[in-house]
Amino acid sequence: MPPLLDSNVTKIQSDWQERCARRKHVQTELIPPEWVIELPPKSQLNVMDVPRNCGLLSGLELEITETVDVQTILDKLRRAEWSSVQVTTAFYKRAIIAQQLTNCLTEIFVERALGRARELDEHLAKTGNVVGPLHGLPISLKDQFTMKGLETIMGYARWIGNYADSDCVLVEILYQCGAVPFVRTNVPQTLMWGETMNHVFGRTLNPYNLAFTPGGSSGGEGALIAMRGSPLGVGTDIGGSLRIPAAFCGLYTLRPSYARLPYSGAMNALEGQESISSVLGPMANSLSGVKIFTKAILDAQPWLLDPLVMRKGWAEDEYRLIHHGEGGKLCFAIMWDNGVVKPHPPLHRAMVLTKKALEAVGHEVIDWEPHRHLEIYKNAETIFAADGGHDYRAQCEGFEPLIQTMSPTTDSHENALDEPLVKGLVGEPYHRTAHESHLDHWRATKSRTSTGRPVDAIIAPAVAYTAVPHGLNTFDSFYTTLCNALDYACSLFPVTFVDPEVDDPHPPHRFYNHEDEHIYKLYNSELFPGCPVGLQLIGGTQEEEAVIGMTEIVAEALDKMNEVHRRS
Amino acid sequence: MPPLLDSNVTKIQSDWQERCARRKHVQTELIPPEWVIELPPKSQLNVMDVPRNCGLLSGLELEITETVDVQTILDKLRRAEWSSVQVTTAFYKRAIIAQQLTNCLTEIFVERALGRARELDEHLAKTGNVVGPLHGLPISLKDQFTMKGLETIMGYARWIGNYADSDCVLVEILYQCGAVPFVRTNVPQTLMWGETMNHVFGRTLNPYNLAFTPGGSSGGEGALIAMRGSPLGVGTDIGGSLRIPAAFCGLYTLRPSYARLPYSGAMNALEGQESISSVLGPMANSLSGVKIFTKAILDAQPWLLDPLVMRKGWAEDEYRLIHHGEGGKLCFAIMWDNGVVKPHPPLHRAMVLTKKALEAVGHEVIDWEPHRHLEIYKNAETIFAADGGHDYRAQCEGFEPLIQTMSPTTDSHENALDEPLVKGLVGEPYHRTAHESHLDHWRATKSRTSTGRPVDAIIAPAVAYTAVPHGLNTFDSFYTTLCNALDYACSLFPVTFVDPEVDDPHPPHRFYNHEDEHIYKLYNSELFPGCPVGLQLIGGTQEEEAVIGMTEIVAEALDKMNEVHRRS
Repeated sequence: MPPLLDSNVTKIQSDWQERCARRKHVQTELIPPEWVIELPPKSQLNVMDVPRNCGLLSGLELEITETVDVQTILDKLRRAEWSSVQVTTAFYKRAIIAQQLTNCLTEIFVERALGRARELDEHLAKTGNVVGPLHGLPISLKDQFTMKGLETIMGYARWIGNYADSDCVLVEILYQCGAVPFVRTNVPQTLMWGETMNHVFGRTLNPYNLAFTPGGSSGGEGALIAMRGSPLGVGTDIGGSLRIPAAFCGLYTLRPSYARLPYSGAMNALEGQESISSVLGPMANSLSGVKIFTKAILDAQPWLLDPLVMRKGWAEDEYRLIHHGEGGKLCFAIMWDNGVVKPHPPLHRAMVLTKKALEAVGHEVIDWEPHRHLEIYKNAETIFAADGGHDYRAQCEGFEPLIQTMSPTTDSHENALDEPLVKGLVGEPYHRTAHESHLDHWRATKSRTSTGRPVDAIIAPAVAYTAVPHGLNTFDSFYTTLCNALDYACSLFPVTFVDPEVDDPHPPHRFYNHEDEHIYKLYNSELFPGCPVGLQLIGGTQEEEAVIGMTEIVAEALDKMNEVHRRS
Repeated sequence: MPPLLDSNVTKIQSDWQERCARRKHVQTELIPPEWVIELPPKSQLNVMDVPRNCGLLSGLELEITETVDVQTILDKLRRAEWSSVQVTTAFYKRAIIAQQLTNCLTEIFVERALGRARELDEHLAKTGNVVGPLHGLPISLKDQFTMKGLETIMGYARWIGNYADSDCVLVEILYQCGAVPFVRTNVPQTLMWGETMNHVFGRTLNPYNLAFTPGGSSGGEGALIAMRGSPLGVGTDIGGSLRIPAAFCGLYTLRPSYARLPYSGAMNALEGQESISSVLGPMANSLSGVKIFTKAILDAQPWLLDPLVMRKGWAEDEYRLIHHGEGGKLCFAIMWDNGVVKPHPPLHRAMVLTKKALEAVGHEVIDWEPHRHLEIYKNAETIFAADGGHDYRAQCEGFEPLIQTMSPTTDSHENALDEPLVKGLVGEPYHRTAHESHLDHWRATKSRTSTGRPVDAIIAPAVAYTAVPHGLNTFDSFYTTLCNALDYACSLFPVTFVDPEVDDPHPPHRFYNHEDEHIYKLYNSELFPGCPVGLQLIGGTQEEEAVIGMTEIVAEALDKMNEVHRRS
């Protein structure tokens, strides 16, 4: 926690709104005036096309920013077809457009980023060599990753003026790799929300529907990358904070296991709570971005800089699925319903599509039988609440009110629930820990596959619904938290979009609990058309490489099915 | 904790001595009468030669048990030159000799082990193939590693009758690998002593001098393996429990980092204390045994059975020192003195010998500058004592007294100290955790080496002295605990033996503290002649493979120097 910066706490207490407004004004002033665009009419809720149509970006800048495959961008940078200054400028302009539409940024530092890009261009011109595997690539960072000389505010009024005197280890490695950190992105106050709003920088909006949340807590990254305002971003995840915005914004992400990517030096909430640790991971419009980031950081031997990172570099043989039939037939299990909350119709359709796509290319798909899911979810929530909110209150005290709801209109909106979760839970007796018995359960699927192995991965929703109106994402982590608690490596991949033509409401089922009923009633396909629908691919602990490899297989199968559909 | 097995606790309370004596009697009855030897006279303190001279072992059995290189034994088993029944019988007989001399065993199960050996022999005869990389090899296990159908008493009267209904994961994997678990070995009550004595099985003695302790807590393994009663044993280490007995008994061992070898299902002390975790590791008379065990377990993918094990198999490239100049010139740093307690003269001589040996074959040796050593030691001790001894008391309550001293004669012997450790410690302010700043400190040695790298490993004492009379090993972990607290992988290797001709007492120095003065005064080279002297080689966290690879280099350098000496 940064030190108190002002002595007169009482004065500040009354001034917090002004203090936040001053800081927000500084941010606005950092936008180059020539990058200010004319905003679309308020009635236009989907702003995904604005960058293409607003006239700020040149043809080349549109080409650069709409190059989804990160490897292609890196190749062009390496061959000096595009300079880093060109690429960084293009993404910066688009990020500033995204900022004006969705309010996704915190720190803006155009000169510093372009100075870095220029140095990299000069190095390449002079030596003929790239600095590292991410040479010249602009990378956006969630507002936890400290950079020397910049503030890290992380959604707290108290932290205004919290200038870092060194880079966190991730940023140090990104520099070694030749990257260009170029913006930092918005988070919710406390980090522990599935939406993105705080008193300093305000609320981040979903570019598919500005009335909707991009999710959280890495929601600034979600909105920014969805708008192609960054080719690659870094967020964090303790209960779904990478996967929720990736699902709500149509992105790829990877939630790695605890000890693989270096968190040291980054700011965080709930420091000292180590039962379920926050992890950092990449977010991108392409799976290549996810792979390239993960491989670059692991190849840089992060354990030399962060003693909590395990000594294991990128395992190419695991990426090539050495433990999963070496690229032969795989068997996936689909978690249609975790027995706690039933997914909305678009999620169900996404799972049906994925099953068909995988079977069409020769893989096997069976049903996943949930195991201790509710118990694990509840235990995780208990761990997150173990300090009784002390950390949050301590950061807010004397500076600003603690945010109690993400609803834009009221402190207790119509969908707020005050009944407790799942009144009737009766614990079953288990002789093994959840980690052990869940692994046993997974291994036992061997008897149901034709591969001679347990199922290679689980495919599941990340959230039971797609993006929702601000304030309504209150029960988001039933499907994500399993992986945090058991430390399973997992990805999120986009599958489709909500389509009112086919996503009819399901008939009511016998509700598992109050929340299940609430979520069932939330669904109205007319509210959600066009929202992205994504799914998780869940692998074993520390199986990052194989999770990426298997997600590639799933994504290719989905692409192939879509092509067949287009042709027919 | 196993359940109470008897309802009448009060009755048991008065009967604990009888209860323990009954269990000890059962153990004695399990020794085949034809393996009972005539004991040497009481005045003979060094019993290392008894197995060779007592007449129980045939020529072949002596050849088998004195084959120190585990690879050679495995090769002969694979080629059926020796059957597993022959090898197991030979080591079992020698283990029973060791038991009669040093009281090193707990569980004895001759028929079961020979039955297993017979099955393996039949499998090999029938299929021509070995079952796994440890085919036919007898392996001894510290009395924590549960085996189905056997008791795990772990030094507690309460745990008598605690039969396991399944194998722990380590044993499961050892069976997969073709090993023959054949005895279990003694531990101290509570496991948290550097000596080995409990009320059920009594005290384990050091075969180099029966009046001395073999160390602890893996002291049963130490005495057994020193007598060649087992080719390979498995112990555990939370503060030095592998390295202390290895040092006091002249063995090799490896203390791996926390998450590499599977502890799941084994019994342990202080369950729930996860700040500094106990780890398991191999003990052997040869480094080949250490390597073969570690590789076999890692190659078996232990993470599939124990979710707390990291997903990283044996890394052959790290063993080949890919991150340490690939087998070229290395730079070691010697920790001559950690600034807390000064090592005894034989330890100093061992370090001088090692430095000379390494320099003679072209490696570099510089001085290690201790960093936060006392602070780390004290914090570790605080963690170990964090439950105020509740765990120990709970296990003893109603069954037996908690052991307060390892002294054989009295509850407060002449060397007991009641003054606190290091009265004058003043903490220095650090902005980084001990893990981070110790890693920084290590990395900064790059400026003092000629290799372009930080020092490749640290060479240090494990204990400031060699084996001592029973009850006197009260301050043993000043040098070992550093590695537990920082989770550095490290080995222990034997260097020499105490030699009164050259190991003159050092002149008194300005004592760092009370313990340092006490340890200085403990030294009397006439007391210790012939005791083994070993050192630690300390590598980075999770650097097991490189630690083994570098220890091989050190051991070969020492061998080469000894050969030169013998020739000259």
